[in-house]
Amino acid sequence: MQGEIITIGNELTSGRTADLNSWYAAGRLTASGLSVIRITSVGDDAKMAADALKRASASSRFVIVTGGLGSTEDDMTCRIAAEALDRRLCLDHQMLRKIKEYVKAKGIPMSPPLEKMAFMPEGAKMIHPKGAACGFSLVEKDIHFYFLPGVPDEMRYIMDAFVVPELLSLYERPPVTRQRLLKLYGLDEPRIADIFAALKGRTGDVVFGFYPKYPENHITMSLRGPDETAVTAALDKVARDIISLVGPYAFAAGDQEMEEVVGRLLGEKKKTLSVAESCTGGLIGHRLTNVAGSSIYFQGGVVSYSNQSKADILHVNPKTLETHGAVSARTAEEMARGIRDQMKSDLGLAVTGIAGPDGGSEEKPVGTVYIGLCSAGETVSRRYRFWGRRKQVKLNASTMALDWVRRHLNGDPFLPGV
Amino acid sequence: MQGEIITIGNELTSGRTADLNSWYAAGRLTASGLSVIRITSVGDDAKMAADALKRASASSRFVIVTGGLGSTEDDMTCRIAAEALDRRLCLDHQMLRKIKEYVKAKGIPMSPPLEKMAFMPEGAKMIHPKGAACGFSLVEKDIHFYFLPGVPDEMRYIMDAFVVPELLSLYERPPVTRQRLLKLYGLDEPRIADIFAALKGRTGDVVFGFYPKYPENHITMSLRGPDETAVTAALDKVARDIISLVGPYAFAAGDQEMEEVVGRLLGEKKKTLSVAESCTGGLIGHRLTNVAGSSIYFQGGVVSYSNQSKADILHVNPKTLETHGAVSARTAEEMARGIRDQMKSDLGLAVTGIAGPDGGSEEKPVGTVYIGLCSAGETVSRRYRFWGRRKQVKLNASTMALDWVRRHLNGDPFLPGV
Repeated sequence: MQGEIITIGNELTSGRTADLNSWYAAGRLTASGLSVIRITSVGDDAKMAADALKRASASSRFVIVTGGLGSTEDDMTCRIAAEALDRRLCLDHQMLRKIKEYVKAKGIPMSPPLEKMAFMPEGAKMIHPKGAACGFSLVEKDIHFYFLPGVPDEMRYIMDAFVVPELLSLYERPPVTRQRLLKLYGLDEPRIADIFAALKGRTGDVVFGFYPKYPENHITMSLRGPDETAVTAALDKVARDIISLVGPYAFAAGDQEMEEVVGRLLGEKKKTLSVAESCTGGLIGHRLTNVAGSSIYFQGGVVSYSNQSKADILHVNPKTLETHGAVSARTAEEMARGIRDQMKSDLGLAVTGIAGPDGGSEEKPVGTVYIGLCSAGETVSRRYRFWGRRKQVKLNASTMALDWVRRHLNGDPFLPGV
Repeated sequence: MQGEIITIGNELTSGRTADLNSWYAAGRLTASGLSVIRITSVGDDAKMAADALKRASASSRFVIVTGGLGSTEDDMTCRIAAEALDRRLCLDHQMLRKIKEYVKAKGIPMSPPLEKMAFMPEGAKMIHPKGAACGFSLVEKDIHFYFLPGVPDEMRYIMDAFVVPELLSLYERPPVTRQRLLKLYGLDEPRIADIFAALKGRTGDVVFGFYPKYPENHITMSLRGPDETAVTAALDKVARDIISLVGPYAFAAGDQEMEEVVGRLLGEKKKTLSVAESCTGGLIGHRLTNVAGSSIYFQGGVVSYSNQSKADILHVNPKTLETHGAVSARTAEEMARGIRDQMKSDLGLAVTGIAGPDGGSEEKPVGTVYIGLCSAGETVSRRYRFWGRRKQVKLNASTMALDWVRRHLNGDPFLPGV
């Protein structure tokens, strides 16, 4: 059940585009209990691509190839596949018909590059498309090859609707593989390494993975075995042990984003939230509204990038701005109170800071950020220092602010400030 | 001057993490005139990693390896490298000292996993680190191997400060390679293919690349030659030809984001902007404030996720909301006027729509978005329909809204609505 992924395109080897297709395909295959042993990216180079295809045949039962199936000049995977697997290149009439229908629906004229997309290696089986770019599969020496378009949406659709189900039907039921994911915020790598060391000898055959994902740290736990109940029970025990060691630093057990965790908690506790953002510029609102159904608990926000808007809309006292500055504990608190009043929400969250690269001072260097939170009972604020460039400071500040809401709703203490 | 990149980690083959390290390394190498012919990702598997290292030796002059140098359980690149290249594993005292210093500065105790990081293949040259995770290089049969940590920041630092300069010093000056990038918004793939077809025979040896990057389309033009002036002139001519064919659909010639282009134009025309966001939830503000110095032209915004906030803060007439609905041309216009008044900016931009997956109707399906823009002269709005999931609708709506500001400032017509 081992396979590999080959992605083709000069955009990958030249670093123009990150290879998110192999990432997606690998994730879907792994989640289905299939394992990916290698991912290879080559340019639009017939020799290199053919070499990758041939080499894959030596060790894999399935090969997923993405890219090079579109209508533009540099796409040539069909030709390469036909050559590498020593097959003729044939015009597929069903495919040509589909392309003609698509072209007609879009009201654009037929052209040779579009026609080219209907040519496939002999024996290939067409994969029904969404949009014009199609995929195809073929079997060579008992190895299943899938050729998918490089456009992420089309590739993902075919992967989920066709490739994964077919692969699962081809193989005998594999031994059960289960994975748990734990997401941490606020602990650095050495402290996490200590936690792992403390678990030594108590984790059986569980395989750990440690993945920094700025500003979070993710831990995976994988276990294989013949029996699902036993695998699940063993994994759950290890996950519980880790959670009891890290406490509220673990914000998600599973693939939830921080904003989803916050949204779920707000929903459970029937609380509403509004945000006043200065240095994060709208990122917190953006993250909260990435969650479907967030309108139930998210009232809205104000991006107060200017002092004037802090005073006019959030009713921050101009004296506060003058005396303490826009980046101060007092301003963060008044922003939190102001947005809560304006939006009539249960919680008012505020962030003000210096994202950089300019605007820092000795007293308040770039990366200095104040978080404020106003609830019915009280208004609190704390000062933090984040490192990195502008986007990193914004990202970390937004995560810290969301973490405040999570910890507040859970009754946990906020992370210590500076 | 051909080389390759090998990235090691179960997080890559399992799809837990996208391989942004190879993307970065490939981009830096390509920009330096070096070419990457293959990128291979394998799991934390000694056999597969050794195989990739050996295979790289056959066709490459340099090999960049990332991952597996940290202090956590699953890191083992040093051992694999030593085995694959048949070298002893030795304790590096300088490295050990650095780790001890780091540990002391952070106030954490020394541990065996941290100590493990000081072991390197015999003959390896240490690469001075930023943080605890270091890299090293070694030369085997005239091939230069670089082993870098997998943490993106550390890897990027070593790549830029050490690897690229050394590689450039090793090789003779390559023939000049220059690349141009053109970013388009609002044209679909077949129409772009037509534009390329129209250029047939007029583009010489220029190599084109076409990269959809939702919701934009990016075109690269590359040309190699012995003489920089000639290469640059030829590329510029082709770029000009394409721009004259696509007109205002081309929003950037170079690696600028849409928000940078908008920011530059606002700065040039000395105009200020504020935004009223409903379905984009803060994304437009976030994008605008990703640009350093945006506080000069960006006044701020309101995320009005509730009807109440549309009325209270943006002063949208409650009757408008009742009669036309929150997602309507009239509401978009009143939001644009409201935010402009509130923020006292030259331009007021508004977006209201249905991001989905719920909230759609027959008359206004998911993906229906109204953009409104209020300037001193007038207030205009238009209805659009975007496709895809929630995040895609938000992204496309934010790009369309920013594109409105760009086109307004350039005196170009807005993209046609539905």
